[in-house]
Amino acid sequence: MDATNAEVACFEAGIKFGSLYHQFAGTPVSPESAPGLARAMEEAIENQPHCQSVTVDVREDVLAAACQHGYTEMTGEFVEVEIVVDHDDCEVVTRMEMEEGYPRMRVVSVER
Amino acid sequence: MDATNAEVACFEAGIKFGSLYHQFAGTPVSPESAPGLARAMEEAIENQPHCQSVTVDVREDVLAAACQHGYTEMTGEFVEVEIVVDHDDCEVVTRMEMEEGYPRMRVVSVER
Amino acid sequence: MDATNAEVACFEAGIKFGSLYHQFAGTPVSPESAPGLARAMEEAIENQPHCQSVTVDVREDVLAAACQHGYTEMTGEFVEVEIVVDHDDCEVVTRMEMEEGYPRMRVVSVER
Amino acid sequence: MDATNAEVACFEAGIKFGSLYHQFAGTPVSPESAPGLARAMEEAIENQPHCQSVTVDVREDVLAAACQHGYTEMTGEFVEVEIVVDHDDCEVVTRMEMEEGYPRMRVVSVER
Repeated sequence: MDATNAEVACFEAGIKFGSLYHQFAGTPVSPESAPGLARAMEEAIENQPHCQSVTVDVREDVLAAACQHGYTEMTGEFVEVEIVVDHDDCEVVTRMEMEEGYPRMRVVSVER
Repeated sequence: MDATNAEVACFEAGIKFGSLYHQFAGTPVSPESAPGLARAMEEAIENQPHCQSVTVDVREDVLAAACQHGYTEMTGEFVEVEIVVDHDDCEVVTRMEMEEGYPRMRVVSVER
Repeated sequence: MDATNAEVACFEAGIKFGSLYHQFAGTPVSPESAPGLARAMEEAIENQPHCQSVTVDVREDVLAAACQHGYTEMTGEFVEVEIVVDHDDCEVVTRMEMEEGYPRMRVVSVER
Repeated sequence: MDATNAEVACFEAGIKFGSLYHQFAGTPVSPESAPGLARAMEEAIENQPHCQSVTVDVREDVLAAACQHGYTEMTGEFVEVEIVVDHDDCEVVTRMEMEEGYPRMRVVSVER
């Protein structure tokens, strides 16, 4: 069957999450450079269609603890991300947070 | 409201597409190396949860035409991709194809 | 034979260039988001060892012309980059610029 | 001063290493998909100019130990890499191996 508006909106939100994660995973990052990188990640993904907002919060303590050589590589452990997609009047809120040592992406709410 | 099974399945399919695209975009590729890269892309994304199958078809003529210096960088113009996700008994088929010069990702069907 | 200090410095400069290019190629970018992305690219690579400075200049006209759908994907056509490495008192200046339609990376000078 | 042939060869080898690392870091990988990914990494980078050979050896035990959720993300811990560059009759051999918990890239030998 064809997808509903809400299903397409969820597909679009997933695209944004996969893009954000796999574009920026591996980027050299330190406590000093993390805020600028987080803003660049937000603005990069907000360019994509139907993307209303992207919020990247750096987990500063976790990042600092991992930077014993001065820097480390960006991975899901160091950020919490919220992405809101609006597609054809359907708003979807999605989040990435650590869960049992694994960065889990999930749909928080769908406004059909 | 909470997401339905089908909406979550579409979200998961989107994650796979964003991951595939932004992980591999920019990879040096030639007509000779493209088949092995396409298989590696399929197997990489099939590792992700709920991912039933990934099929990457190389558009050989388009790629060959772009490789006048011997190779080029992987981008959406050179591949057609189908990703099938199965989440909680809901199967979603999604595809990426060129449309008006732009690699468009879309939900083909949802089996609720 | 073993590498000289200058050869190691050139190797290190090459690592920075390959890192910068392949980490950020494919990032969604628009004229509005490009300055922040350029700063994040500089600060990311400056985290790497022996890296004295990274300067990313956006070619605004070329980027604007490519953004007819509102945004495009970052590639070597849209930036000029200078990276200075200092390794064991040997300073190496390297640059990336377009040359015959191809982003060419080269060693500008070596101070042995 | 201008760079010598050997210095340019070392710069080129560095580019290949940075490219390989930052293109493929973050790729979903499992013991089953790792051999195909390793071949794709080799063939991708061998497309680049002056690149004579790339050899990616998977550290199977380390990878298997990290795949407790079935898969993990590619990072320098899971591979050893040798890249040989030949530029203007100067051959440079370079390697990446773990050293004190950090993937260290270095020039093994330069044949001037």
